Amino acid sequence: MSTLESRLHTAVGKVREHWRGTRFIDGLEPGVEGTEALLELARLYRAYKLEIGRLGLLKGRAVAGLFFDPSLRTHTSMEAATGRCGAQFIHLKAGQGGTWTMEFEDGVVMNGAAQEHVREAAPVLSSYADVLAVRAFPHHPADRDEKVIRAFGRYAMGPVMNLESALSHPCQGLADGLTLADLGGGSFKGRKVCLTWAPHPRQLPQAVPLSVVRAAIMGGADLHLACPEGYDLDEEEMERATSFCPYTGAKLTVTRDPDAAADGALAVYAKGWGSAMSLEEHTARVATLGNWTVGTERMRNATAFMHCLPVRRNVIVTDAVLDGPKSRVIPQAANREPVQAALLLTWLL
Amino acid sequence: MSTLESRLHTAVGKVREHWRGTRFIDGLEPGVEGTEALLELARLYRAYKLEIGRLGLLKGRAVAGLFFDPSLRTHTSMEAATGRCGAQFIHLKAGQGGTWTMEFEDGVVMNGAAQEHVREAAPVLSSYADVLAVRAFPHHPADRDEKVIRAFGRYAMGPVMNLESALSHPCQGLADGLTLADLGGGSFKGRKVCLTWAPHPRQLPQAVPLSVVRAAIMGGADLHLACPEGYDLDEEEMERATSFCPYTGAKLTVTRDPDAAADGALAVYAKGWGSAMSLEEHTARVATLGNWTVGTERMRNATAFMHCLPVRRNVIVTDAVLDGPKSRVIPQAANREPVQAALLLTWLL
Amino acid sequence: MSTLESRLHTAVGKVREHWRGTRFIDGLEPGVEGTEALLELARLYRAYKLEIGRLGLLKGRAVAGLFFDPSLRTHTSMEAATGRCGAQFIHLKAGQGGTWTMEFEDGVVMNGAAQEHVREAAPVLSSYADVLAVRAFPHHPADRDEKVIRAFGRYAMGPVMNLESALSHPCQGLADGLTLADLGGGSFKGRKVCLTWAPHPRQLPQAVPLSVVRAAIMGGADLHLACPEGYDLDEEEMERATSFCPYTGAKLTVTRDPDAAADGALAVYAKGWGSAMSLEEHTARVATLGNWTVGTERMRNATAFMHCLPVRRNVIVTDAVLDGPKSRVIPQAANREPVQAALLLTWLL
Repeated sequence: MSTLESRLHTAVGKVREHWRGTRFIDGLEPGVEGTEALLELARLYRAYKLEIGRLGLLKGRAVAGLFFDPSLRTHTSMEAATGRCGAQFIHLKAGQGGTWTMEFEDGVVMNGAAQEHVREAAPVLSSYADVLAVRAFPHHPADRDEKVIRAFGRYAMGPVMNLESALSHPCQGLADGLTLADLGGGSFKGRKVCLTWAPHPRQLPQAVPLSVVRAAIMGGADLHLACPEGYDLDEEEMERATSFCPYTGAKLTVTRDPDAAADGALAVYAKGWGSAMSLEEHTARVATLGNWTVGTERMRNATAFMHCLPVRRNVIVTDAVLDGPKSRVIPQAANREPVQAALLLTWLL
Repeated sequence: MSTLESRLHTAVGKVREHWRGTRFIDGLEPGVEGTEALLELARLYRAYKLEIGRLGLLKGRAVAGLFFDPSLRTHTSMEAATGRCGAQFIHLKAGQGGTWTMEFEDGVVMNGAAQEHVREAAPVLSSYADVLAVRAFPHHPADRDEKVIRAFGRYAMGPVMNLESALSHPCQGLADGLTLADLGGGSFKGRKVCLTWAPHPRQLPQAVPLSVVRAAIMGGADLHLACPEGYDLDEEEMERATSFCPYTGAKLTVTRDPDAAADGALAVYAKGWGSAMSLEEHTARVATLGNWTVGTERMRNATAFMHCLPVRRNVIVTDAVLDGPKSRVIPQAANREPVQAALLLTWLL
Repeated sequence: MSTLESRLHTAVGKVREHWRGTRFIDGLEPGVEGTEALLELARLYRAYKLEIGRLGLLKGRAVAGLFFDPSLRTHTSMEAATGRCGAQFIHLKAGQGGTWTMEFEDGVVMNGAAQEHVREAAPVLSSYADVLAVRAFPHHPADRDEKVIRAFGRYAMGPVMNLESALSHPCQGLADGLTLADLGGGSFKGRKVCLTWAPHPRQLPQAVPLSVVRAAIMGGADLHLACPEGYDLDEEEMERATSFCPYTGAKLTVTRDPDAAADGALAVYAKGWGSAMSLEEHTARVATLGNWTVGTERMRNATAFMHCLPVRRNVIVTDAVLDGPKSRVIPQAANREPVQAALLLTWLL
């Protein structure tokens, strides 16, 4: 066994000391120390990506990625991580002529459009693939119960990874934790992090902002969350996330003032998200909130700009910020691959 | 060469003793002994799946899977089998913006919608991929001549595998033979097997039931086929299948009484299929045939329940049977991967 | 290192002596000697394809193929080349529920349909994949500026390969150069090559004919280009291509007489392409140009028939020619894999 291989085994062992779970749904599952160990493993992968690619560590293993929604970064980074670890990635597109229409309710007489129940689909996919990765993000709040990812979590036989649901995008959160730690020189404990709502024509789900909150809290940040009235994040999920504050030293400040939140921050993380309003109300409201677009002025005393991408230029953030020296959006997106590889290695090595 | 590798070579050699064909279209091609040898090879693959995955046996080989219709199990199990054997799987979706619209008729002046003739498509794909696997199941009886799979069988340069056509789903049949043999402790020769029609809102093709009939006859079963009047299986195909009875000792009983067919069976295999009626007549007829839904009562004296999936719960079979201890649908679906791997190894090792 | 591996390294070294570029957009980039060295490398790959497949030369590398348009040959041959070289191919379908809608203009306020700007998409994909291969062929002349492939060429961090744009299909051109050289016994320098316009119901882009012209000129052919009035190829691109004539000894004759162009040619390359006319004018015009369909009579004194495929039978060319002994369309299509592999090896070995 090569030195690199044995270092990987050691790093995987560290994760498993703290976390032996097989579900990564909201991202809180590995706990504070498990998350730190995952990030450490991700750093090792990132540093030796090409060498690891030649080891074929997970040869003979398969990861099935089931997409109910479109994807660029998530699909590509999952497939790249899987392949570089030596396993095969099976890309499945649900609906739209790709696979069957699926049923998620129990006790239904299936004489309508749905052709396959998740009670069969999940274990069958598990019998071919060692890990199931699922993306399904129907609009919050309509899908607050996240029936798709929860059903796969319940009926799959092997590990299940959430590639974005209504309330969680945990791989994005893990990558964001890695990016914030990079900015902080290895850790962002005690550092000011700003998460700011930004204008977007659509009522987007809260999966990303909630995952950013969780990542920031798990890493012990001094988190300043800025959003306009009516756009507060899901109360129950915020409560669950902040319950970790005592264990990580994280602090949360919610404010209506994006300038105050951004001032002196290690990172200004912008994201558009929706509310309980109708689309018409949202559109009217957004039209009055142009000041929430992140520009150079707001970034003046902040170190870095972050966004999960895809980003609407000159709506969420100006070209000047995005193309300027403070933007970290490309390395932030690049961090998706190593954190996802870290999960696969934890489960399959 | 490892012990496992040499055992695989021996098992492949056994198949080739009986069958050196390169077309697997209706599943009868390997003959009685070739089929037995394929199942033996599939068992070996199944027992050492992960170890085989590390051998990279078919490295540098490619399998192209061309799908004219949606697929979950077939796509995933083919890609998993291909990858675990060390080859690459190239997933191609015909039509719908994936590839060109294809022409299958000879002598046509192609100034309409069709952009590419199968006379080019098949040999071109063969020049990139070592095996072509094709799914195209236009409705029986309209496509009784199976022009798509037959054209690929004619014009492809390398092996061709049928992933479901109007009259045949031979990989499903092979997996069903393996499942039945598992239930019978290695063989189901002389054992009672029940294939029962079941209600379904659509007029499904007969590919699966015909393949079940072929598999049961090739394995020497005492097959009891139950279906309502008007739903008899394709006469010509039934004649071809039963012509193997003298060589395998199989017997066929056709009945209108599903209870009699199920009583004492090793397996009750349920499946909905269509008829020559109009959809309106079918719908009206199905409404009167609710008793054909398989429930616990019908399963009382049977060992196992089988279905190819996807299955419509509480239409084909009740939740109680499907979620109960007699259901074998998950291991049955899992058997798709090893039988498909056995075909690939037979052709490419 | 095996002998084959060291021969491949030598052949790659020869290409790099002449060309160290990372963009393959119109196919002229490698220059005369770089192109020759690429074809030599392609021949080596072709001769030892299976052995190369077992070496896993590019293990741990990834190629992302982004398709804005449908593809059969290009997708399959790229995925096969990538896999046989040992790298993984990530197939991405732009739009149509596969990925986000993309924006290519600068300075836009993105509050419409487009969700992601190429300024992010290209570097993000580059961070996961070592090579980006892009197909986007909006109709010429509307997209004469080829904004999609040019934007990827500008913003991607690693090598970029054009899989067909409005004006160029450079991998097809390279494969055609290889096919012509095969016909000429290793070279077609000084040999008569005929490129003839042929009827097609649609106004197709000029990517292929322009790439054929470039390939013929780079290889030093005596090129005879036949097309009806109104269908002359893009003037600016023709000027760029013919500027290489003095260095390769190539000659260009443009004619309205397809029989004269075909007479005595090493190859008659047929292709339909559009013009500046409206579709109605084109349709009316094509109806009068039936004589441009290539038949056995026109092929009488020519050695071989070529077409890039897909081809409309009995519109572009008769069945008799396509199914006859002079047709080279299948080996021509097969040559796509080795030339694309040559590019990947040049960039990644």
